[in-house]
Amino acid sequence: MRGIFITMEGPDGSGKTTALQQVVPRLQNAMEKRVIATREPGGSPIAEKIRQLILDPLHTEMDSRTEALLYAASRRQHLVEKVIPVLEKGDVIFCDRFVDSSIAYQGYARGIGEGGIREINQFATEGIEPDVTLYIDVPAEVGIQRIKASLDDREYNRLDQEKITFHEKVRTGYLQLAKENPERIVVIDGTMSREAVAEACYQVIKNRYPAYFKDGK
Amino acid sequence: MRGIFITMEGPDGSGKTTALQQVVPRLQNAMEKRVIATREPGGSPIAEKIRQLILDPLHTEMDSRTEALLYAASRRQHLVEKVIPVLEKGDVIFCDRFVDSSIAYQGYARGIGEGGIREINQFATEGIEPDVTLYIDVPAEVGIQRIKASLDDREYNRLDQEKITFHEKVRTGYLQLAKENPERIVVIDGTMSREAVAEACYQVIKNRYPAYFKDGK
Repeated sequence: MRGIFITMEGPDGSGKTTALQQVVPRLQNAMEKRVIATREPGGSPIAEKIRQLILDPLHTEMDSRTEALLYAASRRQHLVEKVIPVLEKGDVIFCDRFVDSSIAYQGYARGIGEGGIREINQFATEGIEPDVTLYIDVPAEVGIQRIKASLDDREYNRLDQEKITFHEKVRTGYLQLAKENPERIVVIDGTMSREAVAEACYQVIKNRYPAYFKDGK
Repeated sequence: MRGIFITMEGPDGSGKTTALQQVVPRLQNAMEKRVIATREPGGSPIAEKIRQLILDPLHTEMDSRTEALLYAASRRQHLVEKVIPVLEKGDVIFCDRFVDSSIAYQGYARGIGEGGIREINQFATEGIEPDVTLYIDVPAEVGIQRIKASLDDREYNRLDQEKITFHEKVRTGYLQLAKENPERIVVIDGTMSREAVAEACYQVIKNRYPAYFKDGK
């Protein structure tokens, strides 16, 4: 039987990764299926090399469409090597970011447009979609403040108005996706406490898949 | 004014590269525009690194769609860095292989399908198409024989029936593309002598763009 494909999405500073770190161990204890957390490139050697290429600071002249194609290539390889084997075993995979991130960041915020990003990712995934996506929503100001709090002064100074505008575009993209995919994408208020966010994430999964939980049968 | 974008296509062993080496210097002498020969990744450092990743012999487990996305990424970067600047100057660029190769090799012969390959390359090129494509057509047996003649015994033995079938699929893809794009793609009989093939290529360009030739005004 096919497993469950869960993704976690949100702008930088949304607390997405913190929530994932809290909710995954809880699910691992509570569910009868194995629960595996991953993120791209996630230990796929080829996907890792592709990501190194994208992030190489010497590549300041990389075109944004080249970058989008490289992200899709890295995603494809991670999907084939890491995600699909878990789903084929019938287990649960919890992935930090997936196609929605590319649509929000590259499609909306970088201005490539949603359609093209969707097409190259459709090619990469062959239509494999998350069963449920937890989108942690925060206003740009809150996300930026949280990032600032974790940075030193030098980095702090790079966070200017331009960054807020970029964040707002990312959020607009996510909210549009949530509107278009109300069944799949669950919007979680990221301005709540860490514990409340993690609890909300946990309850979404439990309510949707009660039969997969040890106490749910 | 916009320049001329010429591509050269054909299966391995078609004599495509030999023809290109003969025809480019002739065009450089005869045309009033600058004529520049290139091939992907063609001296774009990012495209070069992407190509190294594809060709790394350690990557036996690379998925064919990952590979197709990486080719599209390398193509995009080469297009932006090398091809478009020449066209914007109004010069002539002569490129050894372009999107048609991906459709013939990956779409047809590797079985990914034409549609998906076309879509990711449409994203990569934003619709920039060659003005004219010289397709050097040879039957699979002729191409294979020519490759065999240039190889040592060890490599010779790897060329079995499977390779002929693959070649035939590549050719089927090219011929289908030529049928669908009769204005753009000119089919040249690659079983002719080297000199006759190069002459045919030269005449196609001269007949199509007489005003660009020194003696054509």
